[in-house]
Amino acid sequence: MEIERKFLCDMPSFDLSAYEKTGIIQYYISTKPVIRIRKTDHAFFLNIKSKGYVSRQELEMEITEEEFDNLVKLTDKAPVSKTRYFIPIGNGLTAELDIYDDALSGLITVEVEFESLEDADSFNPPEWFGEDVSEDNRYKNASLYIKGLPE
Amino acid sequence: MEIERKFLCDMPSFDLSAYEKTGIIQYYISTKPVIRIRKTDHAFFLNIKSKGYVSRQELEMEITEEEFDNLVKLTDKAPVSKTRYFIPIGNGLTAELDIYDDALSGLITVEVEFESLEDADSFNPPEWFGEDVSEDNRYKNASLYIKGLPE
Repeated sequence: MEIERKFLCDMPSFDLSAYEKTGIIQYYISTKPVIRIRKTDHAFFLNIKSKGYVSRQELEMEITEEEFDNLVKLTDKAPVSKTRYFIPIGNGLTAELDIYDDALSGLITVEVEFESLEDADSFNPPEWFGEDVSEDNRYKNASLYIKGLPE
Repeated sequence: MEIERKFLCDMPSFDLSAYEKTGIIQYYISTKPVIRIRKTDHAFFLNIKSKGYVSRQELEMEITEEEFDNLVKLTDKAPVSKTRYFIPIGNGLTAELDIYDDALSGLITVEVEFESLEDADSFNPPEWFGEDVSEDNRYKNASLYIKGLPE
Protein backbone atom coordinates (compact mmCIF):
# COMPACT_ATOMS: atom_id res chain seq x y z
CA MET A 1 0.00 0.00 0.00
CA GLU A 2 1.37 3.40 -0.99
CA ILE A 3 0.08 6.39 1.00
CA GLU A 4 1.34 9.75 -0.12
CA ARG A 5 0.51 13.42 -0.59
CA LYS A 6 1.74 15.60 -3.43
CA PHE A 7 2.17 19.38 -3.60
CA LEU A 8 3.22 21.86 -6.23
CA CYS A 9 6.08 24.14 -5.24
CA ASP A 10 8.49 26.79 -6.46
CA MET A 11 12.22 26.22 -6.66
CA PRO A 12 13.27 26.11 -2.98
CA SER A 13 15.39 29.02 -1.76
CA PHE A 14 17.64 26.71 0.28
CA ASP A 15 20.71 24.99 -1.16
CA LEU A 16 19.78 21.67 -2.80
CA SER A 17 23.36 20.51 -3.28
CA ALA A 18 23.45 19.16 0.28
CA TYR A 19 20.80 16.51 -0.44
CA GLU A 20 20.88 13.06 -1.95
CA LYS A 21 19.49 13.06 -5.48
CA THR A 22 18.96 10.86 -8.53
CA GLY A 23 17.95 11.34 -12.11
CA ILE A 24 14.70 9.56 -12.98
CA ILE A 25 13.47 8.65 -16.45
CA GLN A 26 10.16 6.87 -16.71
CA TYR A 27 7.80 5.54 -19.35
CA TYR A 28 4.29 4.09 -19.13
CA ILE A 29 3.27 0.91 -20.91
CA SER A 30 -0.27 1.40 -19.62
CA THR A 31 -1.94 4.06 -17.53
CA LYS A 32 -5.11 2.19 -16.51
CA PRO A 33 -3.84 0.20 -14.72
CA VAL A 34 -0.47 1.88 -14.37
CA ILE A 35 2.44 -0.18 -15.69
CA ARG A 36 5.52 1.99 -15.32
CA ILE A 37 9.20 1.48 -16.08
CA ARG A 38 11.76 3.66 -14.36
CA LYS A 39 15.49 4.18 -14.74
CA THR A 40 17.36 5.87 -11.89
CA ASP A 41 21.08 6.62 -11.57
CA HIS A 42 21.51 3.21 -10.00
CA ALA A 43 18.91 0.72 -11.20
CA PHE A 44 15.88 -0.18 -13.33
CA PHE A 45 12.38 -0.89 -12.02
CA LEU A 46 9.01 -2.17 -13.19
CA ASN A 47 5.97 -0.96 -11.21
CA ILE A 48 2.30 -1.75 -11.32
CA LYS A 49 -0.29 0.35 -9.50
CA SER A 50 -3.99 0.08 -8.89
CA LYS A 51 -6.42 2.98 -9.02
CA GLY A 52 -6.58 5.62 -6.32
CA TYR A 53 -5.26 8.90 -5.00
CA VAL A 54 -3.77 9.22 -1.52
CA SER A 55 -3.77 5.46 -0.96
CA ARG A 56 -3.18 2.90 -3.66
CA GLN A 57 -1.63 -0.52 -4.11
CA GLU A 58 1.82 -0.44 -5.66
CA LEU A 59 4.10 -3.34 -6.52
CA GLU A 60 7.68 -2.82 -7.65
CA MET A 61 10.28 -5.20 -9.07
CA GLU A 62 13.87 -4.48 -10.00
CA ILE A 63 14.62 -5.44 -13.60
CA THR A 64 17.76 -5.59 -15.73
CA GLU A 65 18.84 -2.94 -18.22
CA GLU A 66 18.07 -5.42 -21.02
CA GLU A 67 14.54 -5.94 -19.68
CA PHE A 68 14.11 -2.18 -19.36
CA ASP A 69 15.20 -1.71 -22.98
CA ASN A 70 12.76 -4.43 -24.09
CA LEU A 71 9.91 -2.61 -22.35
CA VAL A 72 10.86 0.81 -23.73
CA LYS A 73 10.10 -0.68 -27.17
CA LEU A 74 6.45 -1.08 -26.10
CA THR A 75 6.11 2.67 -25.51
CA ASP A 76 5.52 5.42 -28.04
CA LYS A 77 5.98 8.67 -26.11
CA ALA A 78 8.89 10.69 -24.74
CA PRO A 79 9.69 9.73 -21.14
CA VAL A 80 8.99 11.79 -18.07
CA SER A 81 12.43 13.03 -17.03
CA LYS A 82 13.17 14.65 -13.68
CA THR A 83 15.73 15.05 -10.94
CA ARG A 84 14.58 13.90 -7.51
CA TYR A 85 16.04 15.33 -4.30
CA PHE A 86 15.49 13.55 -0.98
CA ILE A 87 14.98 16.16 1.72
CA PRO A 88 14.44 15.11 5.37
CA ILE A 89 11.64 17.19 6.91
CA GLY A 90 11.48 15.79 10.43
CA ASN A 91 9.33 13.13 12.13
CA GLY A 92 11.09 10.50 10.02
CA LEU A 93 9.52 11.95 6.87
CA THR A 94 11.31 12.64 3.60
CA ALA A 95 10.18 15.14 0.98
CA GLU A 96 10.83 13.91 -2.53
CA LEU A 97 11.32 17.07 -4.57
CA ASP A 98 10.94 16.44 -8.30
CA ILE A 99 12.28 19.02 -10.73
CA TYR A 100 11.01 18.11 -14.18
CA ASP A 101 12.91 18.46 -17.46
CA ASP A 102 12.22 18.58 -21.17
CA ALA A 103 8.55 19.01 -22.10
CA LEU A 104 7.63 19.29 -18.41
CA SER A 105 10.28 21.90 -17.69
CA GLY A 106 9.02 24.45 -15.12
CA LEU A 107 7.04 21.90 -13.15
CA ILE A 108 8.25 21.19 -9.62
CA THR A 109 6.39 18.89 -7.24
CA VAL A 110 7.09 17.51 -3.81
CA GLU A 111 5.75 14.23 -2.44
CA VAL A 112 5.74 12.77 1.04
CA GLU A 113 5.03 9.13 1.79
CA PHE A 114 3.29 8.12 5.03
CA GLU A 115 2.92 4.99 7.12
CA SER A 116 -0.82 5.45 7.63
CA LEU A 117 -3.80 7.42 6.37
CA GLU A 118 -3.95 9.13 9.78
CA ASP A 119 -0.39 10.39 9.34
CA ALA A 120 -1.22 11.59 5.82
CA ASP A 121 -4.35 13.42 7.02
CA SER A 122 -2.65 15.14 9.94
CA PHE A 123 0.46 16.17 7.97
CA ASN A 124 1.34 19.84 8.36
CA PRO A 125 3.31 20.81 5.23
CA PRO A 126 6.46 22.97 5.52
CA GLU A 127 6.08 26.57 4.36
CA TRP A 128 7.93 25.98 1.09
CA PHE A 129 5.28 23.48 -0.05
CA GLY A 130 2.65 24.95 -2.38
CA GLU A 131 -0.82 23.81 -3.52
CA ASP A 132 -1.91 20.33 -2.43
CA VAL A 133 -2.53 18.33 -5.63
CA SER A 134 -2.79 14.89 -4.00
CA GLU A 135 -6.22 14.35 -5.51
CA ASP A 136 -5.60 16.09 -8.82
CA ASN A 137 -5.30 13.49 -11.56
CA ARG A 138 -3.51 15.94 -13.85
CA TYR A 139 -0.35 15.82 -11.75
CA LYS A 140 -0.03 12.07 -11.67
CA ASN A 141 3.08 11.22 -13.66
CA ALA A 142 1.01 8.89 -15.83
CA SER A 143 -1.16 11.89 -16.80
CA LEU A 144 1.88 14.11 -17.35
CA TYR A 145 3.31 11.38 -19.60
CA ILE A 146 0.16 11.14 -21.73
CA LYS A 147 -1.15 14.72 -21.64
CA GLY A 148 1.83 16.90 -20.72
CA LEU A 149 1.61 19.93 -18.45
CA PRO A 150 -1.84 21.02 -17.24
CA GLU A 151 -2.93 24.29 -18.88
CA MET B 1 9.16 -15.64 -4.27
CA GLU B 2 7.50 -18.38 -6.34
CA ILE B 3 9.00 -21.86 -6.04
CA GLU B 4 7.41 -24.50 -8.22
CA ARG B 5 8.01 -27.59 -10.32
CA LYS B 6 6.21 -28.44 -13.53
CA PHE B 7 5.62 -31.81 -15.18
CA LEU B 8 4.03 -33.02 -18.39
CA CYS B 9 1.29 -35.60 -17.94
CA ASP B 10 -1.39 -37.62 -19.71
CA MET B 11 -5.08 -37.16 -19.00
CA PRO B 12 -5.46 -38.65 -15.50
CA SER B 13 -7.42 -41.88 -15.25
CA PHE B 14 -9.20 -40.69 -12.06
CA ASP B 15 -12.41 -38.64 -12.10
CA LEU B 16 -11.64 -34.91 -12.34
CA SER B 17 -15.22 -33.81 -11.65
CA ALA B 18 -14.62 -34.06 -7.89
CA TYR B 19 -12.05 -31.25 -7.90
CA GLU B 20 -12.25 -27.50 -7.82
CA LYS B 21 -11.50 -25.97 -11.21
CA THR B 22 -11.41 -22.70 -13.11
CA GLY B 23 -11.08 -21.60 -16.69
CA ILE B 24 -7.96 -19.48 -17.29
CA ILE B 25 -7.33 -17.16 -20.22
CA GLN B 26 -4.04 -15.30 -20.30
CA TYR B 27 -2.14 -12.91 -22.51
CA TYR B 28 1.41 -11.56 -22.31
CA ILE B 29 2.23 -7.89 -22.77
CA SER B 30 5.92 -8.73 -22.44
CA THR B 31 7.82 -11.96 -21.96
CA LYS B 32 11.20 -10.54 -20.83
CA PRO B 33 10.34 -9.54 -18.17
CA VAL B 34 7.00 -11.35 -17.98
CA ILE B 35 3.99 -9.03 -17.80
CA ARG B 36 0.95 -11.29 -17.83
CA ILE B 37 -2.78 -10.64 -17.64
CA ARG B 38 -5.09 -13.44 -16.57
CA LYS B 39 -8.84 -13.91 -16.48
CA THR B 40 -10.25 -16.69 -14.31
CA ASP B 41 -13.87 -17.65 -13.69
CA HIS B 42 -13.90 -15.20 -10.78
CA ALA B 43 -11.44 -12.34 -11.27
CA PHE B 44 -8.80 -10.52 -13.33
CA PHE B 45 -5.10 -10.30 -12.49
CA LEU B 46 -1.95 -8.52 -13.58
CA ASN B 47 1.34 -10.34 -12.85
CA ILE B 48 4.96 -9.42 -13.28
CA LYS B 49 7.76 -11.99 -12.98
CA SER B 50 11.51 -11.84 -12.98
CA LYS B 51 13.76 -14.36 -14.74
CA GLY B 52 14.29 -17.88 -13.43
CA TYR B 53 13.12 -21.46 -13.38
CA VAL B 54 12.24 -23.26 -10.15
CA SER B 55 12.46 -20.06 -8.09
CA ARG B 56 11.51 -16.62 -9.34
CA GLN B 57 10.05 -13.41 -8.03
CA GLU B 58 6.38 -12.95 -8.85
CA LEU B 59 4.08 -10.05 -8.01
CA GLU B 60 0.34 -10.19 -8.60
CA MET B 61 -2.35 -7.54 -8.43
CA GLU B 62 -6.09 -7.93 -8.92
CA ILE B 63 -7.42 -5.60 -11.62
CA THR B 64 -10.88 -4.70 -12.89
CA GLU B 65 -12.49 -6.10 -16.03
CA GLU B 66 -12.11 -2.66 -17.65
CA GLU B 67 -8.38 -2.60 -16.83
CA PHE B 68 -8.06 -6.14 -18.18
CA ASP B 69 -9.78 -5.09 -21.42
CA ASN B 70 -7.46 -2.07 -21.71
CA LEU B 71 -4.43 -4.34 -21.41
CA VAL B 72 -5.73 -6.91 -23.90
CA LYS B 73 -5.53 -4.11 -26.50
CA LEU B 74 -1.74 -4.04 -26.01
CA THR B 75 -1.45 -7.68 -27.09
CA ASP B 76 -1.43 -9.12 -30.60
CA LYS B 77 -1.67 -12.87 -30.15
CA ALA B 78 -4.36 -15.39 -29.27
CA PRO B 79 -4.47 -16.04 -25.52
CA VAL B 80 -3.34 -19.18 -23.75
CA SER B 81 -6.58 -20.87 -22.73
CA LYS B 82 -6.79 -23.75 -20.29
CA THR B 83 -8.84 -25.37 -17.57
CA ARG B 84 -7.06 -25.69 -14.23
CA TYR B 85 -7.99 -28.39 -11.71
CA PHE B 86 -6.79 -28.14 -8.10
CA ILE B 87 -5.92 -31.64 -6.85
CA PRO B 88 -4.70 -32.16 -3.27
CA ILE B 89 -1.76 -34.61 -3.24
CA GLY B 90 -0.94 -34.76 0.46
CA ASN B 91 1.58 -32.98 2.69
CA GLY B 92 -0.42 -29.79 2.22
CA LEU B 93 0.51 -29.72 -1.48
CA THR B 94 -1.85 -29.05 -4.36
CA ALA B 95 -1.30 -30.19 -7.93
CA GLU B 96 -2.51 -27.64 -10.44
CA LEU B 97 -3.47 -29.67 -13.48
CA ASP B 98 -3.73 -27.54 -16.63
CA ILE B 99 -5.58 -28.92 -19.64
CA TYR B 100 -4.89 -26.60 -22.55
CA ASP B 101 -7.35 -25.64 -25.28
CA ASP B 102 -7.32 -24.19 -28.77
CA ALA B 103 -3.87 -24.04 -30.43
CA LEU B 104 -2.34 -25.79 -27.42
CA SER B 105 -4.91 -28.58 -27.38
CA GLY B 106 -3.35 -31.90 -26.39
CA LEU B 107 -0.96 -30.34 -23.91
CA ILE B 108 -1.49 -31.21 -20.25
CA THR B 109 0.84 -30.03 -17.49
CA VAL B 110 0.81 -30.24 -13.73
CA GLU B 111 2.50 -27.78 -11.38
CA VAL B 112 3.18 -27.90 -7.66
CA GLU B 113 4.15 -24.87 -5.61
CA PHE B 114 6.48 -25.23 -2.61
CA GLU B 115 7.33 -23.25 0.49
CA SER B 116 11.08 -23.75 0.10
CA LEU B 117 13.71 -24.90 -2.39
CA GLU B 118 14.41 -27.86 -0.07
CA ASP B 119 10.77 -28.96 -0.35
CA ALA B 120 10.92 -28.55 -4.15
CA ASP B 121 14.13 -30.58 -4.40
CA SER B 122 12.91 -33.43 -2.22
CA PHE B 123 9.45 -33.67 -3.84
CA ASN B 124 8.53 -37.19 -4.87
CA PRO B 125 5.99 -36.83 -7.70
CA PRO B 126 2.88 -39.05 -7.79
CA GLU B 127 2.91 -41.82 -10.38
CA TRP B 128 0.53 -40.01 -12.73
CA PHE B 129 3.02 -37.14 -13.18
CA GLY B 130 5.15 -37.40 -16.35
CA GLU B 131 8.39 -35.78 -17.48
CA ASP B 132 9.80 -33.00 -15.26
CA VAL B 133 9.91 -29.84 -17.40
CA SER B 134 10.59 -27.39 -14.55
CA GLU B 135 13.73 -26.13 -16.27
CA ASP B 136 12.47 -26.38 -19.85
CA ASN B 137 11.80 -22.89 -21.16
CA ARG B 138 9.52 -24.23 -23.91
CA TYR B 139 6.79 -25.11 -21.43
CA LYS B 140 6.64 -21.75 -19.73
CA ASN B 141 3.27 -20.26 -20.61
CA ALA B 142 5.02 -17.17 -21.95
CA SER B 143 6.87 -19.40 -24.45
CA LEU B 144 3.69 -21.30 -25.32
CA TYR B 145 2.00 -17.94 -25.94
CA ILE B 146 4.74 -16.70 -28.28
CA LYS B 147 5.90 -19.94 -29.93
CA GLY B 148 3.07 -22.43 -29.48
CA LEU B 149 3.52 -26.13 -28.77
CA PRO B 150 7.09 -27.51 -28.76
CA GLU B 151 7.72 -29.76 -31.79
